[in-house]
Amino acid sequence: MIETPYLLFLGDAPDGLAAKVAQGIKDWRPKNAVGQFRMEGCKADMRLPDMTLEEARAAGAKTLVIGVANRGGIISAAWKKVLVQALEEGFDLASGLHNLLRDEPDLVAVAKATGRQLHDVRVPSVQYPIANGVKRSGKRCLAVGTDCSVGKMYTALCMDREMKARGMKSSFRATGQTGILITGDGVPLDAVIADFMAGSVEWLTPDNDADHWDMIEGQGSLFHVSYSGVTMALIHGGQPDALVVCHEPTREHMRGLPGYKLPSLEQVRDMALQLAKVANPACQVIGYAINTQHMGDDEAQAYLADVETRLGLPATDPYRYGSDKLVDALAAL
Amino acid sequence: MIETPYLLFLGDAPDGLAAKVAQGIKDWRPKNAVGQFRMEGCKADMRLPDMTLEEARAAGAKTLVIGVANRGGIISAAWKKVLVQALEEGFDLASGLHNLLRDEPDLVAVAKATGRQLHDVRVPSVQYPIANGVKRSGKRCLAVGTDCSVGKMYTALCMDREMKARGMKSSFRATGQTGILITGDGVPLDAVIADFMAGSVEWLTPDNDADHWDMIEGQGSLFHVSYSGVTMALIHGGQPDALVVCHEPTREHMRGLPGYKLPSLEQVRDMALQLAKVANPACQVIGYAINTQHMGDDEAQAYLADVETRLGLPATDPYRYGSDKLVDALAAL
Repeated sequence: MIETPYLLFLGDAPDGLAAKVAQGIKDWRPKNAVGQFRMEGCKADMRLPDMTLEEARAAGAKTLVIGVANRGGIISAAWKKVLVQALEEGFDLASGLHNLLRDEPDLVAVAKATGRQLHDVRVPSVQYPIANGVKRSGKRCLAVGTDCSVGKMYTALCMDREMKARGMKSSFRATGQTGILITGDGVPLDAVIADFMAGSVEWLTPDNDADHWDMIEGQGSLFHVSYSGVTMALIHGGQPDALVVCHEPTREHMRGLPGYKLPSLEQVRDMALQLAKVANPACQVIGYAINTQHMGDDEAQAYLADVETRLGLPATDPYRYGSDKLVDALAAL
Repeated sequence: MIETPYLLFLGDAPDGLAAKVAQGIKDWRPKNAVGQFRMEGCKADMRLPDMTLEEARAAGAKTLVIGVANRGGIISAAWKKVLVQALEEGFDLASGLHNLLRDEPDLVAVAKATGRQLHDVRVPSVQYPIANGVKRSGKRCLAVGTDCSVGKMYTALCMDREMKARGMKSSFRATGQTGILITGDGVPLDAVIADFMAGSVEWLTPDNDADHWDMIEGQGSLFHVSYSGVTMALIHGGQPDALVVCHEPTREHMRGLPGYKLPSLEQVRDMALQLAKVANPACQVIGYAINTQHMGDDEAQAYLADVETRLGLPATDPYRYGSDKLVDALAAL
């Protein structure tokens, strides 16, 4: 569990895209960020107050979150200087970088001397159990996709926000690095050891109130040969009561796999549902979340209308047009 | 890669069942075992020559393989004494125990001093790639099951033996600890990090001669909620051309999951085939391997005949009645 609120470290980000972790926190948990820390030459801007470390501490910030990708696979000397100073001023550090903070001897030494925490969310910090498949109380909704990076995290976050706004009981359950940094906890599923994957998802979504929904961030796709095992573990460990199928219509092949075409929505619906029923026979597909960011408004609306007609369930771009339809469907279950 | 041949360490095994790793080596790679080492009170017997460490070295043994489960989760002082002496006499050590040899400081010290290797096959020793899904040359056959521990390893080993006897090109590809110790190499798939599972299977079954078959040991089941992600990674990483469906008809529920019934052969056939076609559209189910160890001969034969009639493909208990039918089907592909 990472202590909030955060100061978002944007470093010397070459553009806004490099700071997608910071953007995710700003978009989804704005109250978790008191300000941003930018170095000379930083081209990203979260439209948060620019703060020195001292100012951010005074404003209550507990953790400096690295909200930007690093270049060249190293933590630069310029970054290091800020990180060391942050530890000395009382911040914990949190990072989703491939280079682990814990592998930097100087950071480890200063953290030890100052009693601060180094959170590397890319690697698990918990010894997860093997899944036992026992039915848990409470409800769970899982986002599954035709491919990787089609909007599964944003779909779950959108629905979670809408459910909270309606006074429904809901928790977004992060299963990836960005999601974990946004919310402060979760399971970095792609870094979990094979035997414990489904167990880590059970651990992440424990018994809860009968009317509480875990909105589980999906990973990969049953049709993505590199990562389908991770998706499978989410479907069986998550015991979902509801599935939302996510898709990005303009993609020409599976991400990173030029020889592989995307499956149809029907294929994902049928395959995911069959497999989900092994762990939860009552599971239902409740709708479609379409990432229309590369489509004009008319094209997007026509696509959504076509999906609804063809598949007979609500379809929306939850980030662009809201997730009401999907939440209505969950509420009606 | 573990150096062969082996001396099989049976320790103080309370019965034959505790020595199933040694039994597997004896059954499947008898030439890999020059003899057995038994301590006082050992109740297991592989019907191999009993040898001292010195005699085994003289007979050419390179590695002492721990062929027996340990009791109480510790490596006892009595075992330790033999293991240290083996290192001193020039043996490498190989073990599939949960307690790792490398976590025993005295073994590490002696191995270092004597220049010997400690092989812990329960954990990967390779940095596996992420799967790229690129079609590989050569043929692959994967054993999939209705459940865990229904005979997938024995099926692949039986078929591999029969294929070699016929002069076909075949390699058994181990994906579990016992299989790795039997053959000397493989991937301990259940201990691989999630993102690299499918890649480790690609690594294990690389490009090969067009008429060469990799006989891949299966793991788990698509219908076993604890381990289905591992099975999924085998199906997509393995790119199988052929699937053999394995089953144990007398089992009352999924192994370790009292609330879960076994799927039918039809369900496993259909689900595994659909998923396998994502990575290899030409994949076919070629037959059924039924573990009839808990059935009398009449009952077993009737069961197999019924499967053949119902499903229209060859069915056999490969360990009991031979794997000819299944190998015929592979050869005919």
